[in-house]
Amino acid sequence: MAQQADLERLATISRPHRDMINVMPLQTGSILTDAARRALVEFGDGYSVCDYCQGRLADIANPPVRDFVNVMLPEFLGSECAALTYGARDGVFMVLHSVTKPGDTVVVDGNRHYSTAVAAERAGVELMAVPNSGHPAYVVEAQQYQDVIAEHKPALVILTYPDGRYGNLVDAARVGEIASAAGIPYLVSGAYAVGRMPVRMDELHADFIVGSGHKSMAAAGPSGVLGMKAKWQDIVLRRSSLHKAKEVECLGCTLRGVTLATLMASFPAVVERVKHWDEQVAKAQWFSAAMEEMGFRQLGEKPHRHDLLAFETQALFDISQRVRERGYYLYKEMESRGIWGIKPGQTKALELSTFAASRRQLEQVIAAFKAILEKYR
Amino acid sequence: MAQQADLERLATISRPHRDMINVMPLQTGSILTDAARRALVEFGDGYSVCDYCQGRLADIANPPVRDFVNVMLPEFLGSECAALTYGARDGVFMVLHSVTKPGDTVVVDGNRHYSTAVAAERAGVELMAVPNSGHPAYVVEAQQYQDVIAEHKPALVILTYPDGRYGNLVDAARVGEIASAAGIPYLVSGAYAVGRMPVRMDELHADFIVGSGHKSMAAAGPSGVLGMKAKWQDIVLRRSSLHKAKEVECLGCTLRGVTLATLMASFPAVVERVKHWDEQVAKAQWFSAAMEEMGFRQLGEKPHRHDLLAFETQALFDISQRVRERGYYLYKEMESRGIWGIKPGQTKALELSTFAASRRQLEQVIAAFKAILEKYR
Repeated sequence: MAQQADLERLATISRPHRDMINVMPLQTGSILTDAARRALVEFGDGYSVCDYCQGRLADIANPPVRDFVNVMLPEFLGSECAALTYGARDGVFMVLHSVTKPGDTVVVDGNRHYSTAVAAERAGVELMAVPNSGHPAYVVEAQQYQDVIAEHKPALVILTYPDGRYGNLVDAARVGEIASAAGIPYLVSGAYAVGRMPVRMDELHADFIVGSGHKSMAAAGPSGVLGMKAKWQDIVLRRSSLHKAKEVECLGCTLRGVTLATLMASFPAVVERVKHWDEQVAKAQWFSAAMEEMGFRQLGEKPHRHDLLAFETQALFDISQRVRERGYYLYKEMESRGIWGIKPGQTKALELSTFAASRRQLEQVIAAFKAILEKYR
Repeated sequence: MAQQADLERLATISRPHRDMINVMPLQTGSILTDAARRALVEFGDGYSVCDYCQGRLADIANPPVRDFVNVMLPEFLGSECAALTYGARDGVFMVLHSVTKPGDTVVVDGNRHYSTAVAAERAGVELMAVPNSGHPAYVVEAQQYQDVIAEHKPALVILTYPDGRYGNLVDAARVGEIASAAGIPYLVSGAYAVGRMPVRMDELHADFIVGSGHKSMAAAGPSGVLGMKAKWQDIVLRRSSLHKAKEVECLGCTLRGVTLATLMASFPAVVERVKHWDEQVAKAQWFSAAMEEMGFRQLGEKPHRHDLLAFETQALFDISQRVRERGYYLYKEMESRGIWGIKPGQTKALELSTFAASRRQLEQVIAAFKAILEKYR
């Protein structure tokens, strides 16, 4: 039985660390802009974007959902049309559920996100992975898609671009050429690309691209986007036979509220920030070099081309073996130094993102690691 | 091509009418509580509820998602377990996709929401409707489920409780007895019940209940809840074979952000407000009587037992035939009087909800209608 005190505790949930230096891969791309913070308050109430709806989310003129979905998003994604989703995974499932049938095979990269496997399971299709090169670079070679496609004749090809663990960027355009030559539709799963770095579906020869509002578009969650070639619109965005204004795969409307408002409000800043991606890459490489100087080892591609970074941190693990808090010491030490994003308990390998933090803040992160190594020497 | 000015307009979207008297059926149950407004700001950033996640949304201890999902929600819903969804429709689809197979028949009430039809289409099942009694009451008789079930041997029975247009409340417990006797699983679609009025799945002899955060639980959207009997957990909430912590029908995690924070923060107030449902019903009946005194006709059940109300408003339609703004005059007249929720263009029949407005505010609504009738006499 829930106690009254437990119940009342819900009313005061808070997030005291939200202004700390954030290096958590999940979170660095979705810290809200000031504009999104204003939209959050304006559109907080349920169904807030539906004030002037005439029956169709993507046709709402105020706020300008119509222009956002039908003009701005396709331009940004390099797609011919777009839809709003609950997140990247939901876009993947919408495509799977529309263009494949149970029993089909889908070819995917070996670094795919767990949710791609779960979406495939939900759609009843089997995934066939193009393997990565293993430790330490975990590289997936685009060219390898050719043989796997030829062997398995899949209904769909998926590439995670970049993958969420190592931040590796496969040659997505080459995969697109291969899929295209084989006549197989191709989906770019870009939860960590769309909104962070320049990425255009057309330039990657893709049929679909999914992005995540709450991963990389400075938006509240759940929110996401799906871009596609026009030829898929009648399949993936097919309308209900009874309710002609409603897309079947969207169950009518998807983002009916505040998360869409934040996605839209941040969009101008997101369009701008992807133009500065080279600065992000330089920052990630500089940070990686500093980490390696300390004796940690960066996994994944080198030189690295994304802010998602994984490191082997044996020295931090060694410490965990002889301190009272075991693996939790690192999380606590970092938190006490104002740094957020170390998974409690994790020490042997760390996944970090340099996207949100400035160089100055990342210097603090490096100094923190140094101080911890020193303290427990 | 999107103009720069259009793009920048996204950064300043606003909702100037959000503090007006609100009678829009979609919106009256999801105006945020003060606690939810605080949570909105605290948890605005993407993936904000995942700070302390160890791999499973429903297991997060801080904020107390675990207690909320596993203890408080089941108690509130009268269910044996619960899950977080993007909304009522998404819960309906999760159940359809798990307990039916393409080609199956599902029995539903004739007043069902459009999204139930779209979800059925997405799942490849055919809906068979228990008809309503037609104009003016549109009543669905629970007993009629018996014959329709006997004839069609459905894989699932659904009842919309109440329906979203007339606010009629079918004898849901009787439908439960009938479905139960026939051995057919039974889903109560309670987007306008859960969070507004007392409703318990167990008392309705139901297997499933869905609720909507952004319709009736004072939460931001998209958000929803799904309650069920424990025996369905392994089917509807089955785990991925590869990723054991993740539910297939949820694609892993659903409400990964602010909408869950508002749902939780408002929950204590929601638990409290359903205890005062009798006051809401009395207010709705009082309002309905005042509308009928003006010559409007209430559709749906009488005496009415829900705040969702539909009226035939012929006199307002007659005015629209002779004014310059045609049907839009009513929306404008009401808005200018501080009243929000009249659909632009609608005059012949109006759907209103008395849930959010006080009696004093509803007196203003009645006075507004009177003044408009007088002005255009």
